[in-house]
Amino acid sequence: MAWTDLVPDLLGVFFFAVSGSLLAVRRHFDIVGSLMLGTCVGLGGGILRDVILAAGVPRAFDSPIYLVPPVVAAIVVYFFAHVVQRFHDVLITFDAAGMALFSVTGTLVSLAEGMNPVAAAILGLITAVGGGVIRDVVANDVPQVFRARGLYAIPALLGAGLTSLASWADWFNLGAGAAIAALVFGLRMVSLRYRWEA
Amino acid sequence: MAWTDLVPDLLGVFFFAVSGSLLAVRRHFDIVGSLMLGTCVGLGGGILRDVILAAGVPRAFDSPIYLVPPVVAAIVVYFFAHVVQRFHDVLITFDAAGMALFSVTGTLVSLAEGMNPVAAAILGLITAVGGGVIRDVVANDVPQVFRARGLYAIPALLGAGLTSLASWADWFNLGAGAAIAALVFGLRMVSLRYRWEA
Amino acid sequence: MAWTDLVPDLLGVFFFAVSGSLLAVRRHFDIVGSLMLGTCVGLGGGILRDVILAAGVPRAFDSPIYLVPPVVAAIVVYFFAHVVQRFHDVLITFDAAGMALFSVTGTLVSLAEGMNPVAAAILGLITAVGGGVIRDVVANDVPQVFRARGLYAIPALLGAGLTSLASWADWFNLGAGAAIAALVFGLRMVSLRYRWEA
Repeated sequence: MAWTDLVPDLLGVFFFAVSGSLLAVRRHFDIVGSLMLGTCVGLGGGILRDVILAAGVPRAFDSPIYLVPPVVAAIVVYFFAHVVQRFHDVLITFDAAGMALFSVTGTLVSLAEGMNPVAAAILGLITAVGGGVIRDVVANDVPQVFRARGLYAIPALLGAGLTSLASWADWFNLGAGAAIAALVFGLRMVSLRYRWEA
Repeated sequence: MAWTDLVPDLLGVFFFAVSGSLLAVRRHFDIVGSLMLGTCVGLGGGILRDVILAAGVPRAFDSPIYLVPPVVAAIVVYFFAHVVQRFHDVLITFDAAGMALFSVTGTLVSLAEGMNPVAAAILGLITAVGGGVIRDVVANDVPQVFRARGLYAIPALLGAGLTSLASWADWFNLGAGAAIAALVFGLRMVSLRYRWEA
Repeated sequence: MAWTDLVPDLLGVFFFAVSGSLLAVRRHFDIVGSLMLGTCVGLGGGILRDVILAAGVPRAFDSPIYLVPPVVAAIVVYFFAHVVQRFHDVLITFDAAGMALFSVTGTLVSLAEGMNPVAAAILGLITAVGGGVIRDVVANDVPQVFRARGLYAIPALLGAGLTSLASWADWFNLGAGAAIAALVFGLRMVSLRYRWEA
């Protein structure tokens, strides 16, 4: 995996892991529970994707470097959670950032495994929302992807669809990926700010 | 896959997707949430089966036609949900129809992948109840298969077992499959009507 | 699989299945729900491990003998649940015994499939805690591994890590495995007794 693929994926893991560790703190889990939930949220979407792709052991288990972001996230959250004032907003923001990155990287991984463009976009969507579903089910919330404030599944599917389309048209590069992720993140945050509903 | 296998499987997906979309409406999810939950419920049991069968990418991702029933279900539910009077009964009925079909088709798929008759029946049971478990966990209910009104797991296992037995004895054909599914559906509905408990 | 590997694994399935069936009784599930939940809890961690290992059909489906412990557990619980006085303590004790055994056997299976020592230990942890997570999610509880009374994830990871280390150093044998499982079980129970928190 080239570093241009690996770095955005690890960043996505980190953002989702922060959202999981934050929720753990909010629910009064201890530091171990925070690390465990952050790890599940950060790696869950990608593991789900890799299991469905049936392409061998999920990369999170092959490459121990995937364990680094959840550990960093748990430590950061442990030391900074008490200074966070607008707890829910911070969680939602990190979740949106992870979702935006994974909608791109999840689709790219699926295309690289030979999926057709439609299936790759759907697997990108699953990567983007899977970790958050695990987080919310564990915490006994209805997962955001099913009942979000603002738009959630639409930006995620848009990001996955654009990535798939751009790759199919041979337009995809690092800049395009960054632009798509920024669009997804922006759309999610703006829809929250102005309370758009589908 | 012959159309005699594909059509009942797609019908099962449709019935379960309706149950998921109905529950989404009942819980005040928007149309996107309704489509997402319907898709998860309709395809979840089969994806779970295919992942356990370890026979490559689940057929729902290989064949885009599997996405059609959840889309139709979400649209139908969107336009007709407000005229439904006995909401819970309709949900339970569609769930029973999906469960009855999947107990047959899930077992057939597993036999076709070379599983022994016992394992195939258990995978048929998993196909038949998997989508509903996902639906109920997401909605924070205890899954019906664990605590149903009436009988649930018993008809599902009966259908899967009869399908496995009939295939092993080389008696299975389209008529036998339809009869088994009708028996499973009937047993489920009668047990609800007369409040049978295991 | 040698009987020295199979027997501890089946014992772990039995212990976890008892914990699932006990919770089912406590939640007023019927005997079928009790058998279903016990089976999911007993086999869930190992199926999750085998799916991630991508090494073919999970052994619970290949070897019908894995269905015996959950059936025995459901029968035992059915006849003895009403004499149990300290319900929650019994459930926690069986859960701890299953977790201790699976932290060893789950790691061994993963090493045998060629995983590196770190990934094998993490898969041992997943095997040890996966069934309990399924049980608690189904019952709408926050899974113990995330918010346990006493220590939970730490003993499980310690057991998996020691097993991985001992195998790597070529020190592992049946006695070492028994000693590690006893240590994990003891640490879990002592941490509960004295209310240790991470």
